[in-house]
Amino acid sequence: MYQHNFNAGPSHLPESVLKQSIGAIKNFDDTGLSILEISHRSENFTTVIEEARSIAKELMNLEDDFEVLFLHGGGRTQFMEVAMNLLDNDKKAAYIDTGTWSSKAIEEAQLFGKVEVIASSKDKNYSYIPQSYSIPEDASYLHITTNNTIYGTEYQNIPACTIPLVADMSSDILSRDINFNRFSLIYAGAQKNIGAAGVTLVAVRKSILGKIKRPIPAIMDYCVHIKNGSMYNTPPVFAIYTCLLTLRWLKEQGGAAGIEKMNIRKAEALYHEIDTNPLFKGTVAKEDRSRMNVCFVMEDKDLEKEFADYCKKEGMYGIKGHRSVGGFRVSLYNAVSLESTKALVQAMEHFAKVKA
Amino acid sequence: MYQHNFNAGPSHLPESVLKQSIGAIKNFDDTGLSILEISHRSENFTTVIEEARSIAKELMNLEDDFEVLFLHGGGRTQFMEVAMNLLDNDKKAAYIDTGTWSSKAIEEAQLFGKVEVIASSKDKNYSYIPQSYSIPEDASYLHITTNNTIYGTEYQNIPACTIPLVADMSSDILSRDINFNRFSLIYAGAQKNIGAAGVTLVAVRKSILGKIKRPIPAIMDYCVHIKNGSMYNTPPVFAIYTCLLTLRWLKEQGGAAGIEKMNIRKAEALYHEIDTNPLFKGTVAKEDRSRMNVCFVMEDKDLEKEFADYCKKEGMYGIKGHRSVGGFRVSLYNAVSLESTKALVQAMEHFAKVKA
Repeated sequence: MYQHNFNAGPSHLPESVLKQSIGAIKNFDDTGLSILEISHRSENFTTVIEEARSIAKELMNLEDDFEVLFLHGGGRTQFMEVAMNLLDNDKKAAYIDTGTWSSKAIEEAQLFGKVEVIASSKDKNYSYIPQSYSIPEDASYLHITTNNTIYGTEYQNIPACTIPLVADMSSDILSRDINFNRFSLIYAGAQKNIGAAGVTLVAVRKSILGKIKRPIPAIMDYCVHIKNGSMYNTPPVFAIYTCLLTLRWLKEQGGAAGIEKMNIRKAEALYHEIDTNPLFKGTVAKEDRSRMNVCFVMEDKDLEKEFADYCKKEGMYGIKGHRSVGGFRVSLYNAVSLESTKALVQAMEHFAKVKA
Repeated sequence: MYQHNFNAGPSHLPESVLKQSIGAIKNFDDTGLSILEISHRSENFTTVIEEARSIAKELMNLEDDFEVLFLHGGGRTQFMEVAMNLLDNDKKAAYIDTGTWSSKAIEEAQLFGKVEVIASSKDKNYSYIPQSYSIPEDASYLHITTNNTIYGTEYQNIPACTIPLVADMSSDILSRDINFNRFSLIYAGAQKNIGAAGVTLVAVRKSILGKIKRPIPAIMDYCVHIKNGSMYNTPPVFAIYTCLLTLRWLKEQGGAAGIEKMNIRKAEALYHEIDTNPLFKGTVAKEDRSRMNVCFVMEDKDLEKEFADYCKKEGMYGIKGHRSVGGFRVSLYNAVSLESTKALVQAMEHFAKVKA
């Protein structure tokens, strides 16, 4: 049975990406070798990483000052690396706390300098995005998490900010048409919207780097990675290749603007069902609802297991809510189709009819 | 034409690993989903990572005190992470400098405490392994690079050492039957002997951890990774799967002892040709020759391009020497067959006949 993959990450990839990945494992670029065993210094692979960097920059419409890197280590390494590179011991950084990942980013940054948490939605189990705060002019940067995978909230508007704005975009990068140039540093684990697990995209303005006194380990220094074109160490070759394929696919979908239209249709279909089906209710403030991670519970908690079992039988994968919220979390990342979304909506309708 | 892959890394993988990888991308573990899009928290994947950890521990015959981790970031991240976890600001660590990677490890460690380089073979372009040095009893650990990928030297004997012994085994891990329990921490990028690029194996004795005063970022803290079973962050799922498949294959070859026999035959065949063919000569001290990376040059440098072109025509991939040594470097990692090695030897013989 076809599996509708709504997992929070790693998550669904386009069929064409899977197919081409297999082709490259068999015989990459007509080399007679597998992509799993070619030299990362070969022209065949340097072409891959260069195109991946260039297409990411193009899809985000980034200004010339930006460099795009593909690094090891996931978003969690960026929690540390951002502060290591941008926050001096005697300076402070501002953070907005909108959930588990923001909190973890704050904890790591605190090892490198002062951290001022200027707003938090922890008081209501992170069910909204704080709107009222003032950004300290003397902070080295403001860090936000644009989409909160666990709680299902998403910034609808990017904060106006005169200091460098740093964003963890792991779960909504390139899912909508925003002005990426409003940021000075963007990072995102690939495994939700732009590829397979094992690589992290970093887009950083060169002009914010090299300004702190701390000596930075070479492997954590963005300047070193820029100088070496993301090839300072052996890169995660295959994961980067899946990014290239996914970014090419995204371009074919009309880029950020094109995929946003589809993401709106998917999210509207599912939220409409949640709001009109008497069995279900959303868990976050409507105005802050994420298009990527749709969180909901059932009015009657006792029905949740039965609904989950029914969905499993219907080929729905990865809809269990995170333990911090409970209920259900349906991730509608770029590669998840409108058809899969409609299949889930139908399952919710059918279940309500049976229970009526 | 079949490509004999002698690349220094990423490198050749067993056919069965490539085949099973493709199967798992199509339909992993009969889930109807690709391994590139399954949840790392699913039972299907936790089984993979647990088996990979357990089989690595078994193949190295490690004592109970050891934990095996699969981490992001490559050997270069370990250069930093080892010192972050084991070297206090006011303490010192001893390092033996046997090449580029040792030097880089030393540079990163110097940011965290005092580093005493107790021996170096830099005086002769790293063409030998230093034998005479004394290990300071008050150092927090001794760090060695068991095999030097670029220069083609390898420790034939593990130093006797009363302080914790730390080793970068990136290019010879599980290629020979040594007593891995002589070490307290072993790390290795997977892309040479145990899998595809994008993941690093770390085997560490729990008893050496948690002894320093420095606060460690959670993502760099071995204790955090141990506590979370290598799943503190989203792991590089597919790269770990290739490790599991490669380790299973290695077990079928008789483990470290079994593969060592084959590695000896391969290395002996190639070194014999280098030593007896008048056109070629080895670049390192015979007693320190690596079985994994065989470096040689031609007596007549002007013939090197012609020989390289001839080898390319014969389907030999990745034999160009590193720029620090010149000439040729042939990597004979575990998965490289005796047949491929013999094909190269034949090419050398044939070339010598033509030139005679």
